[in-house]
Amino acid sequence: MKIGIIGAGSIGLLFASYISSFFPVTIYTRTDEQANGINAYGLVLKRGSTQATIKVKALPISEWKGKEDLTVITVKQFQLGSIFEKIKELESLPGSLLFVQNGMGHLKDLEKLPVKNLFIGSVEHGAYKEDDFTVSHNGEGKTNAAVYKGDSSILREFSRAVSANFPLVFCEDYYELLVNKLIVNAVINPLTAILQVKNGELIKNQFYFKVLKNLYTEVFYILNLEDHEKHLRQIINICQNTADNRSSMLKDIEAGRATEVDAILGFLIEKAFEQEKKAPQVENFYYLIKGKEFTERF
Amino acid sequence: MKIGIIGAGSIGLLFASYISSFFPVTIYTRTDEQANGINAYGLVLKRGSTQATIKVKALPISEWKGKEDLTVITVKQFQLGSIFEKIKELESLPGSLLFVQNGMGHLKDLEKLPVKNLFIGSVEHGAYKEDDFTVSHNGEGKTNAAVYKGDSSILREFSRAVSANFPLVFCEDYYELLVNKLIVNAVINPLTAILQVKNGELIKNQFYFKVLKNLYTEVFYILNLEDHEKHLRQIINICQNTADNRSSMLKDIEAGRATEVDAILGFLIEKAFEQEKKAPQVENFYYLIKGKEFTERF
Repeated sequence: MKIGIIGAGSIGLLFASYISSFFPVTIYTRTDEQANGINAYGLVLKRGSTQATIKVKALPISEWKGKEDLTVITVKQFQLGSIFEKIKELESLPGSLLFVQNGMGHLKDLEKLPVKNLFIGSVEHGAYKEDDFTVSHNGEGKTNAAVYKGDSSILREFSRAVSANFPLVFCEDYYELLVNKLIVNAVINPLTAILQVKNGELIKNQFYFKVLKNLYTEVFYILNLEDHEKHLRQIINICQNTADNRSSMLKDIEAGRATEVDAILGFLIEKAFEQEKKAPQVENFYYLIKGKEFTERF
Repeated sequence: MKIGIIGAGSIGLLFASYISSFFPVTIYTRTDEQANGINAYGLVLKRGSTQATIKVKALPISEWKGKEDLTVITVKQFQLGSIFEKIKELESLPGSLLFVQNGMGHLKDLEKLPVKNLFIGSVEHGAYKEDDFTVSHNGEGKTNAAVYKGDSSILREFSRAVSANFPLVFCEDYYELLVNKLIVNAVINPLTAILQVKNGELIKNQFYFKVLKNLYTEVFYILNLEDHEKHLRQIINICQNTADNRSSMLKDIEAGRATEVDAILGFLIEKAFEQEKKAPQVENFYYLIKGKEFTERF
């Protein structure tokens, strides 16, 4: 089975590094430069104090033909548009795609995608891209995946092969999988990015924890969830388990990159609007992050 | 007419510096050390590129007898408790007190104060305390004042004397005066302190401006105000006129000092609670500031 990976950010590099021990992998990059670099020097995977150099084939995204048996799409949600365009231009459609974006706004686009097997994943690994060829795996986790449409057999085969050191856990319900990730992202990401604190601070500081609970309660209400206690416990667990991590949104803000706030809080604002619900907290955090992006980038 | 000034922070030092050209002033300090310093070296008033040294009599607060004709209380609202205790212990009650605190929580305490003339003020000057004897007057403004109870004649006399270079403007309604200041403080202070930006940024950054309007609208609703446009214009004007200033709350947070958030947002939370209104935004900003205080101070 041949695997394609689209996107060579932290998650793309992490997937390529691990999966290439089991399957032939081609990673597709945005720039020719990064592809050339990876082909010349390989990928460097750091884990604790150890590091390994891994040979992986890389091509610029313009060279993607969709011929691999399974392709993992690791770009951020706001970059999916160009991938969808690309798919329409392919001579033959790819057989199976696994999407691992944050947010849920892309679900409506997947509906229209003429691909046989579509899978949805959410990644719980902590990974940091040090440079174009180097990824640091600083939080060992797992990937959750579920069928969006089509047949699961290829994903199951993939899962069996990689599970020893890069676990992929099967979930029944893709919607639940995305919602669970969304709740966590909607609360932890904006708060840590605005306050410029590590994840653990949100539960250690009793006042920040109040805001966390308030914001979570609004998210709970917008998403019509059922078990208030369960999801709150999940958020608290993640703050505990990743206490020393900086969230992806905080890192994006610090690096002057665009964040995923549209996919996360923007999606929730839309959901609230559709239901004629008020979302004053989600809205304020959305604009605070947009404002931060604006000042950090210009 | 003899003037007493209680509190030797930025506002106390500013008042003492200006008023002592017109009246004999005694400034009362929290520590013996600061009083000794002021007596030995005088106060330094900086304004633009000029500076003047001014002789002012200073005493520690323990020496206050309430004998001055008018006493200006410049301590922060959360420090008023000890001043009220002190008043009760005086052998003879002071005749006239002018309170210039932010917030409105102290109004209920003034009711019970057995003093003949009580005045309320709000200070629009920008002042920065550089050290125990030095104040920089970096935003020329005015003091607004109104009668809370009693007779206004002494305050009018005071106003006439100082108005040439330290204007004190008479207002009819002390409540309106405090509310106007509260609205401005409730919006500009927390936002600048959380975002760590200067006042002007709240209107220059279109996204921050959205949050400013949202938060203001909640404050408007809690205070049962009538003219939405008018108060919003006032907030915008102040952001424009003090664009390069750091708000007092931002400075307090940066210096690891307690802020006035209880007097400002804490008061609004109470008001909302009394009326069974929801105040999700005010509440979140309250806790974000409390959390910041907590991390900066401990």
